[in-house]
Amino acid sequence: MRAQRVQAPTPAAARQAHCRPRPARARAQQVAGQGKVYIDPVEKEAAAFAPATVANLGPGFDWMGCAVEGDGDIVTARVLPDRPGEVVIEGIEGDGGRLSLEAPKNCVGIAAIETLKLLGAAPSCGVGLRLHKGLPLGSGMGSSAASAAAAAWAVNSLFGCPVGKDRLIYAGLASEAAVSGYHADNIAPALMGGFILIRSCDPLDLQRLPFAGDLWFVLVNPRFEAPTAEMRAVLPKEIPMKQVINNCAMGGSLVAGILTGDAALIGKSLDSDAIVEPVRGPLIPGFAAVKEAAHAAGAFGCTISGAGPTAVAIVSDPEVGERVKQAMVAAFRTAGQLEVNSAKVVRLDNEGAKRV
Amino acid sequence: MRAQRVQAPTPAAARQAHCRPRPARARAQQVAGQGKVYIDPVEKEAAAFAPATVANLGPGFDWMGCAVEGDGDIVTARVLPDRPGEVVIEGIEGDGGRLSLEAPKNCVGIAAIETLKLLGAAPSCGVGLRLHKGLPLGSGMGSSAASAAAAAWAVNSLFGCPVGKDRLIYAGLASEAAVSGYHADNIAPALMGGFILIRSCDPLDLQRLPFAGDLWFVLVNPRFEAPTAEMRAVLPKEIPMKQVINNCAMGGSLVAGILTGDAALIGKSLDSDAIVEPVRGPLIPGFAAVKEAAHAAGAFGCTISGAGPTAVAIVSDPEVGERVKQAMVAAFRTAGQLEVNSAKVVRLDNEGAKRV
Repeated sequence: MRAQRVQAPTPAAARQAHCRPRPARARAQQVAGQGKVYIDPVEKEAAAFAPATVANLGPGFDWMGCAVEGDGDIVTARVLPDRPGEVVIEGIEGDGGRLSLEAPKNCVGIAAIETLKLLGAAPSCGVGLRLHKGLPLGSGMGSSAASAAAAAWAVNSLFGCPVGKDRLIYAGLASEAAVSGYHADNIAPALMGGFILIRSCDPLDLQRLPFAGDLWFVLVNPRFEAPTAEMRAVLPKEIPMKQVINNCAMGGSLVAGILTGDAALIGKSLDSDAIVEPVRGPLIPGFAAVKEAAHAAGAFGCTISGAGPTAVAIVSDPEVGERVKQAMVAAFRTAGQLEVNSAKVVRLDNEGAKRV
Repeated sequence: MRAQRVQAPTPAAARQAHCRPRPARARAQQVAGQGKVYIDPVEKEAAAFAPATVANLGPGFDWMGCAVEGDGDIVTARVLPDRPGEVVIEGIEGDGGRLSLEAPKNCVGIAAIETLKLLGAAPSCGVGLRLHKGLPLGSGMGSSAASAAAAAWAVNSLFGCPVGKDRLIYAGLASEAAVSGYHADNIAPALMGGFILIRSCDPLDLQRLPFAGDLWFVLVNPRFEAPTAEMRAVLPKEIPMKQVINNCAMGGSLVAGILTGDAALIGKSLDSDAIVEPVRGPLIPGFAAVKEAAHAAGAFGCTISGAGPTAVAIVSDPEVGERVKQAMVAAFRTAGQLEVNSAKVVRLDNEGAKRV
């Protein structure tokens, strides 16, 4: 086996990778006679936060997602010196005891295992993980992606961030594939922030769409377990050409709204999905009334976040956002007979996963 | 009937409407006792040119088109003082005698009739039209739209351009509906220039997408009558979800390419249509080889222009364009056994219909 050399990233490269620069102490270490190359950690512990994400953005079903400020998940990774290559979940809080502590069956565990594979050399230590869930499970706000992104960034940080965010997405994708399907529209913005257009998932081909200025979202999460299987089952297998043309045009318009910084156009585009919302909306009690209430209160547009049940509206500013939020909450209560877990007015998050 | 007043456009308004400013002499004239309002012409004769257009741009099927410099159609409109409201086609050249001289059966006639309806008052004169066809019929380069756009702009100009280009599209749409279907993806760019995203045709909702910089196209028109009925018949009625997601994402990417001035991304997006090109391409002899040849010679992407048979490629500059052109022509000859009517390297046209 040929000897390999693994270099710790320079502080400049680390900055470029959105990683807080640290003394670059990671080094390759060749075990005599074996040719195997190891990479050492540069820190004993690293904590990372990843934000909520809104995917399936109206006509952007399965190809467009964005990150939003506010709540998110935090993962703390620590070095386990004597257990090279191992990933151990040491604790989870905020999940109501619903998540598995077995690494290969948990988003953070899978993302950590895959991140270790991406380091460029075998890790000379193991990793212990603690997850603090800030996002509700199954809400349509990218909870699993936030966990995976935070885990990947925390583990990567332990080793001085040798893996760029664009490649780290593969670790998150492996996790998403295990829990919700091989889709990048949550994990890509959870890691990278902003709006991400998924040109293709296989091979992975992403495009960041910068939004100039402030963009405000209202996210209202009702107390309702969206019937996941049914949410998938109602999706049509084949779609009439007229609706396809509509969604392609409106998807194009959504991209135009983002790139020209036109929040009203983004809202209008979100409203115009003729394929997914018409079949999924009716499965969320009161959704039609919530959408109507959001508009009446001044929202530019309103649709389902992810696979629901969270409803998302686009607004011009936080003041309008407050009014829209109240109207949406009231509509969920009266028309949908649903209590509300959380209702927030939040900004676009342009950073994604970050050290905390 | 209430008296109405029709104002001639101010020179500023005329400039805004991309109309060469003229002495504003158009005036409303109320016929005593009838209440009917007339509008007078401000010129005796006006000629307008409208460019070729490329519609069905890859994943932009039926919702995206653009105008290209170079060839186009010219319509000269002249006042017929004693025949108010009448439209007469006085001559057509360059069509090989294929087009009707009856106004209601001809693009220029229909567009002229509809333009007169849009003036805001009854015309006090009739209009005689002469059409010079610079574009080949049935080539996929928006020949009928160019005729209609030139006619609408020439007639509008006779009256001092009281109708803005955005409204004049209705005149062109009426013409397109009669000859090729109610689609705006040729007529909108033929009139307005640049890239136009058709959000909806009914109601009409257009979005101009500015492209910063130079964009070059190679257009190769083979001597082949595309089987129109078959070209329509092969379009699938229903499309599998996977292809829908692909085309929506690639359509979004096409918009991103345009708005960020990224010719390579535009080309890449044009190549990625999974719905229309795969079924229409095989109906054009040699098309697959033409596409391959375009790529091999350095094109960013290549697809069918309109409903074909013209093939369109995106290139970085005119030099590469010349090489790509030669390669495409050769491929049509060898693989498709087709001679070539015309092969040109042209720029994006940002102006659309204009006075000549």
